Amino acid sequence: MPRTAAALIIGNEILSGKIVDTNTTFLARTLFELGIDLRRVVVCPDEVDTIAADLSALRTTYDLVFTSGGVGPTHDDVTIDGVAASFGRPVVRSEAVEKMIRHYYGDRATEAHFRMANMPEGGEMIRSSEAPWPTVVVENVFVLPGVPEIFELKLADLRKRLDEGHEFHSQAVYTHSGEGEIASLLERIAKDFPAVMVGSYVKWKAEDYRTKVTFDGNDPEDVAKAADTLVTELDPKQFVRRE
Amino acid sequence: MPRTAAALIIGNEILSGKIVDTNTTFLARTLFELGIDLRRVVVCPDEVDTIAADLSALRTTYDLVFTSGGVGPTHDDVTIDGVAASFGRPVVRSEAVEKMIRHYYGDRATEAHFRMANMPEGGEMIRSSEAPWPTVVVENVFVLPGVPEIFELKLADLRKRLDEGHEFHSQAVYTHSGEGEIASLLERIAKDFPAVMVGSYVKWKAEDYRTKVTFDGNDPEDVAKAADTLVTELDPKQFVRRE
Repeated sequence: MPRTAAALIIGNEILSGKIVDTNTTFLARTLFELGIDLRRVVVCPDEVDTIAADLSALRTTYDLVFTSGGVGPTHDDVTIDGVAASFGRPVVRSEAVEKMIRHYYGDRATEAHFRMANMPEGGEMIRSSEAPWPTVVVENVFVLPGVPEIFELKLADLRKRLDEGHEFHSQAVYTHSGEGEIASLLERIAKDFPAVMVGSYVKWKAEDYRTKVTFDGNDPEDVAKAADTLVTELDPKQFVRRE
Repeated sequence: MPRTAAALIIGNEILSGKIVDTNTTFLARTLFELGIDLRRVVVCPDEVDTIAADLSALRTTYDLVFTSGGVGPTHDDVTIDGVAASFGRPVVRSEAVEKMIRHYYGDRATEAHFRMANMPEGGEMIRSSEAPWPTVVVENVFVLPGVPEIFELKLADLRKRLDEGHEFHSQAVYTHSGEGEIASLLERIAKDFPAVMVGSYVKWKAEDYRTKVTFDGNDPEDVAKAADTLVTELDPKQFVRRE
């Protein structure tokens, strides 16, 4: 069974449409490549109680949880408090990170900057050569920042730790057929290959195909057989290409 | 009090990173312009039970709920079934939409196409001159498609129905200061103007400023006063511009 995951995206700026959330897509693609099944994403406001309640629901249901946002120095950065509340632990200050902040900001360092050295008691601070700041991990919860450049850097760093060699395999078949015309065929294939995820995507803008059908699963042979079935049973005139 | 809203984004293709969800941002911006407070977004897989459970939680907590995705003709398009299950109502077929489908697809129409005429019993089919297909509405739940072009068209159509004249007003102040340096000032402003949302956004890529501070609220005077406070109390050398 693939491991399951959820994401908690924290920030009023996303809910008000001021900032476009690109972290969810980056996370989804990374987890897919690692064969980890992202099952749920929740976007919530910068509120300690909401974060704590959401995180408690997610971390007890899924194998891995990734949070994004709310870890900066300002009043609305309350993710660490929310994570600590979810685990029922106090917030403590990492001396190592406090030193890093003092070194980085020097005389400009304010109490607000030092909040970035906070973490729930018993949390781990994972350091790497790539990312400028460590990543807080508490049990199965990875606390990542909202700024996309740093989110992506940190997640790339975590790949090795998360990789257990169960990557997904994918094939795609492109057809001139509309979804409605091949719906019953796809339904049959999905039933015959229960371990393969069958998806279909209509192209509305001009392309050389109308529907892209995707096949994803942990077993490459199974995935190939499911795609074979579609290619074999499709009207040859409707077939465009296979990837 | 502004009305509250939530979104339920339905689709394995988003959770696997195959498709980038742009509907959430479009919805967030539209609701913000209408003064409707989007409080929560959930992305869930194409599963009837999950959709029903999520929708039941959202529609009883928020004034308005918008769903996106899962309304096409294929086996994984189960949103209507999920909405019906949440309301405990049977799925019925709209004769009017059935006629539209018959007219549009002619001899090519399949049983799968006619699934797009399904709706929960007692639902409304809202028609408009702009969107090619009607939108299903059940009480406070608006069922929108996942394809962004149609999602946006339909939501634009719904604007008049949703507009109650409580739009948000926004101002922004750009500064050379880092977030950490103005954190305590921002916290004080947020406390002094409880009806104004104060947000701060760091720019990591080269720009003429380091932090953008935003002020949003229903009362334009209140918003202006909050922004005034920042401009007045900021070191003048750090001020870049106001918008």
